[in-house]
This record gives sequence, structure tokens and C-alpha cells, in this order.
Amino acid sequence: MHEGGKLAVRSLLPLVDRESLSLAYTPGVADVCTAIADDPSLARDYTWRSRLVAVVSDGTAVLGLGNIGPAAALPVMEGKVALFSEFAGLNAVPIVLDTTDCDQIVDTVAAIAPSFGGINLEDISAPRCFEIEDRLRERLSIPVFHDDQHGTAIVVLAALRNAARVTGRSLDELRVVVSGAGAAGVACTKILLAAGIGDIAVSDSRGILHPGRDGLTSVKAELAASTNKAGLTGSMADAMAGADVFLGLSAGAVDEDTVATMAPHSIIFALANPNPEVHPDVAHRHADVVATGRSDYANQINNVLAFPGVFAGAFDAGATAITENMKLAAAAAIGDVVGDALTPEYIVPTPFDSRVAPAVAEAVARQAREDGVATA
Amino acid sequence: MHEGGKLAVRSLLPLVDRESLSLAYTPGVADVCTAIADDPSLARDYTWRSRLVAVVSDGTAVLGLGNIGPAAALPVMEGKVALFSEFAGLNAVPIVLDTTDCDQIVDTVAAIAPSFGGINLEDISAPRCFEIEDRLRERLSIPVFHDDQHGTAIVVLAALRNAARVTGRSLDELRVVVSGAGAAGVACTKILLAAGIGDIAVSDSRGILHPGRDGLTSVKAELAASTNKAGLTGSMADAMAGADVFLGLSAGAVDEDTVATMAPHSIIFALANPNPEVHPDVAHRHADVVATGRSDYANQINNVLAFPGVFAGAFDAGATAITENMKLAAAAAIGDVVGDALTPEYIVPTPFDSRVAPAVAEAVARQAREDGVATA
Repeated sequence: MHEGGKLAVRSLLPLVDRESLSLAYTPGVADVCTAIADDPSLARDYTWRSRLVAVVSDGTAVLGLGNIGPAAALPVMEGKVALFSEFAGLNAVPIVLDTTDCDQIVDTVAAIAPSFGGINLEDISAPRCFEIEDRLRERLSIPVFHDDQHGTAIVVLAALRNAARVTGRSLDELRVVVSGAGAAGVACTKILLAAGIGDIAVSDSRGILHPGRDGLTSVKAELAASTNKAGLTGSMADAMAGADVFLGLSAGAVDEDTVATMAPHSIIFALANPNPEVHPDVAHRHADVVATGRSDYANQINNVLAFPGVFAGAFDAGATAITENMKLAAAAAIGDVVGDALTPEYIVPTPFDSRVAPAVAEAVARQAREDGVATA
Repeated sequence: MHEGGKLAVRSLLPLVDRESLSLAYTPGVADVCTAIADDPSLARDYTWRSRLVAVVSDGTAVLGLGNIGPAAALPVMEGKVALFSEFAGLNAVPIVLDTTDCDQIVDTVAAIAPSFGGINLEDISAPRCFEIEDRLRERLSIPVFHDDQHGTAIVVLAALRNAARVTGRSLDELRVVVSGAGAAGVACTKILLAAGIGDIAVSDSRGILHPGRDGLTSVKAELAASTNKAGLTGSMADAMAGADVFLGLSAGAVDEDTVATMAPHSIIFALANPNPEVHPDVAHRHADVVATGRSDYANQINNVLAFPGVFAGAFDAGATAITENMKLAAAAAIGDVVGDALTPEYIVPTPFDSRVAPAVAEAVARQAREDGVATA
């Protein structure tokens, strides 16, 4: 199925005779070049880049496989490109890198940036992914979006808001335990804070993050300062007692005894693939709402609900960046698609719901205009 | 016609339901990734890169427009990608660069190289193009080919061999004047020397290259040492007296009086676009064979006769480089397509002759195997 790769580039113009060739290529194309040289904004209209995504990876954190390098990461990036095409009609190109050095990655992506309308960073290991994204966002005036962070965060927020709604609560009433302080853990925590969640305890392999813990990276120190109002210390299991929400983003299994200590009407998102941190059957014995990353259970948290529409909306607006508000708007749009059909078994749309990408795109473009980052 | 750009990326796999998604993307794609991680040679079979060309430019020497920058160069690169697709069925991607620094260009292309099967350098100004190509060829184990040099050189050699044949001579009898010592002038001179031409005088804007001339770049000093057996000095017009061949690659107009001093049965290739150095009507008054770069006259010297088949052949053989012999083989294959139909008005096939790319690909792949650079 994957033989020969999964993608093709095709010409949208016929090149069948001397005349079509001379219009599509030399000498005719010179008029287009001259026009863009005179007015660079015309590149938006007369090249493909304004709706073209670079799917960039260094192959260091690929699926659950870890650091497998650029060549072995390429099939995933081809698949991601296929998703951009199928779900939002966007063009994309996989770019895998022969370097894992932050400076070199930033310089390389910046150097090729005039070829693209947006940069989707993919499967780059933490904490390098944070620095790389931050520096590229600062340096480039096109959208830069690390999907493992923000795609996941957007869909988690959409799902959690509906989970709260279906259990009759609001986000500010909820105390959450986030298991995992990698790319997804950090981004989910930040978006939940921005959305007004009650409190969050973030736990990594060494236990709960708190400001007094030794040896925190700068990213984790920042999280420790902005979370854990309750001042918890100890292991993740300690944080689970009385928690309303478990958000698993780490593949670390949680035993049933620990799950049983959660508050009544709890919500469990166990997103590790292929083995959720809490098996759905176990989760359902203790929680009112259960979500996983798997397609064979209800409530699949799948990034494909977010990234096609996020980029499509950013491109529609000619956005120079993807703001925090645009991510919040995307989450709201995804959640709203569920609408009155909301049940504990249906808190997010399915990946193939064709209403999602247009709704996300519209919300993201509108927010880009409100945030003053739109150029079109 | 160019609105929205000229290219699209499409998925070759259907992504219509849960099952197709889980095979094309996660979790199914993990098997392909793991296989490539275990045996990197499998990337050839299970990704698209083995038949994917990066069309790379820094926008410094675009058509006759000069240094117009990456955004304005992009429509040309899109057109080139369309030609790869239409003429050889190859996938290609335009990559325009936000740097004109040799070190940065080399580092950038090397960093993204695992994404591609070959690198087509395009519209990069001389003399930087020589250094960039040399360094990339040394650093990468995939084909690197600066088309403005070698594409032109291959087609010029193919045409000149047939021009010699139709006028009853062999290459070693011919004395050539090359006007222009840029990318095309240097590469054409080198391939003609490799093919056994009699003698060549190369002229730039300051006159004939000879070892005694001051201020030669390293590339021009090398040319001066390997050409001009006759020891000519002075202006290009001085070299024209008695010359058998004029090869114009510079846009510098040549007046009819100078053309009239050439040897009987002369051959004029005036390749500047859109204004040939010698107007074809003037050239025909003095020469037996005339070629231009224009599609509205006979004998069009068009790179599209070479690059699609060169890359297709290199990919067919899994070539790790494009050797000098592979370029000579490509030239021979192009010339051979003309065969017995040879006349002074038909020394090269037309760009739309569908026999050309397969013939070139076959010859290039065969030569790659003979030269020991094939891996497939």
C-alpha cells in the first residue's frame, strides 16, 4: 500500500503544445515574475505557496517509535500531507531534516520559508520542539504550528469543554491531572489554563511539578509556576485523589485503584496509542466520560479535527501567525459541531465529519482578523 | 492562468474511512517506518523521495530578469516542476531560498536532502553556482544537477554533433567561439572539450579568455588553461575570424560584419532569449546551420530535452551522482532521436517529441551502471 510513496505533484496547467508551454513557462512566466518582483504581495495570488504547508520533522519523536531519523519518519510525513489534502484541500510537502540541532533546524526552515505559506512542525522531541517553534514564530511572518502540541491541545480542549457540559459543570470547576510534560502535556496545560480551567496538576516521570522541585527545565519551571494552585507534591497517584479529570499524554499506565480515588462524575482522557493509560473498560467503571486516541472506541481525540482547518483558516485570512485566540477559536468550533447531539459517548465529532474543517477554518480566519494578524 | 499557482499535491491513497486512514496513517504507517529504520535502503521503495526532485533556487539569475529574489522566482520553479511531471512523470517540489550566501545554501540543501531523491539547482548566479554545485555533489549521495549549466550543455552538444554531421564534419575539426563565460558558457565549453571538439575560444564581456589575462576568477582561469589552443587574444570579434561555430550564451549582440568573417559552412547557435545574439535571418545568410533558444524558429535548443530524462534515468538506476559520462550519454541519446531525418533545419528533436525523455533515461541509467554509481 505504501510502495512508491503516497503522494504525487501534478501540474494544474496543460503543457501539450508550444503555446501552452510558452505561457506556463518561458517566456510567458516572466510577466508573473516581474509583477511579483514589483509587488511582493502578488505572490499570494500567483504562486501556490499561499496555500502550501511544509510538514517539517527531524524524525526524533515519531509516533511511539522515538528517534528513528528522517528517512524512517518520511512515511508519516507523507501521510500527514495526504491528510492536509483530503481534509482541507490544502497542498503540503514533507520536509525531513538531516539535523537535530536547534540552530540548524531554525536556520534551515527559515531559509526555505519563502517556498511555503505555513510551517507544520511534526514529531520533534521535547524540549527542543518548544525552542524551535518559539524561534521560528519570532523569525517568520507565516503561521508556524507544532501539531503535536497545539493540534492535540485544541482537540483536548474541545472535548473537555463538551465533557464538562454533558456532566453539568463548567471548566472553572474542574481540577485536572495531566500525566506527561512533553510536547502535548505542555501545550494542553497551557490551553486549558487559557480557557479558564479550575486547577491543573502536571506530572512527569518524577512526579508532580511544583516550584520547589529541583532540576526543572525552563519549560517545566514555567508550568510549575502557573499550575498546581493546590500546592500538591508527590507522585501522580497523589494528585489523582479527588481529581475531576485525568488527561493521559504519556503512555504511563494508571492502575484501577488509583483511578478509583478520583472525584465522582470524573472524566478520563487516556490518549496514549495504541495502549491507553487507563483501559476504556476500566475507565468506564469509574468515570462518566471516557475518551481515547483510538478509532475503535467512542470519543476519539484525533488531531485531524484541528490542523487541516487551522491552516485553511489561517491561509484564508492571510494570517501572519497563529495566535492563542485562534487556537481557542478552533477548539470552540470543533466542540460546537457536536451541538445538541452531545452525549457522554459523543463529545467530539468523528474524524470524517466533513463539517469540521470548514467550521474550524471559518472560526480561525475570523479570529485572525479580530487579532489583527490577517492580511487578506 | 497563473492564478493560485500551477501545482497540486495529491494523495495516491484513498482516505475515505476509518480503516483506510489507519492503514495510510497511524497506526498502520508505523510498520513502514520501523522497516525503514531497520533497513534504510527500503526508503527507496516505501517513500516518494526516490523519484522526487527538489527544484532549488535563490532567485539570483532568473530567466533574463536577473536577481529578483525567491518569491518572484517561484513561478519559474513551479513551471519547472510542471515540466518534470509532464515530460518524465517525476514528482518535484520548488524550493526557493531566503539566502544568497554559498555556505547557507549548501547547508540548507544538505539539511533537507533526506526529503528528496535528487537536487536540480536552478537560476543561481555565476560564479556562486559552480561552488554550490561542487560542494553539494561532494556532500550528498544523490544526484545534484545545475540545469542552467548541464541541461544546456547536453542539448548544445547533441545539436552540435548533428550540425557537424549534416555539414560533413566531425567535432574534432571544429573551432568554436563561445560567447559568455557564465553558468552555460562554462558548462558548454567543458562538455565540448570532453566530447573532443577541435578548439574553443571563450569570450566574456572583456574579451577572449587566455592564461595571460589579469583578474580571472578561478573558474575562468581553469577555462583559459584548457581552451584557446590557438593562443588568441583580443575581442570576441577577433576570435570569430575563420571560426566554424559561434555559440552565443550571453545576450551580447554580434553584428553581421563579424558573422561574415566566419569560415565557410559555419554553424551558428544564438541562444539568447528572447533576442538571439545573431538574428536568425542574418545568421542564415552566412551559416549552413542555425539554432536558437526560441520555439518559433527551427532547431530550438531547449533544456527540456535533457533534464526530465536525466533525472528519470538517474532515479531508475538509483544513481548516487550524475557523472560526466552520463551527461555525454544523454547528449548522444538526444541526438540519436533525430536519426536519418537529419537536415540543417532539424538537428535536434522538438521539445514535445515523446521519444526523447525515455531515450535519455535509458542511456543515462545504462551509463550510471557502467560508471559504478548505480544502486538499483
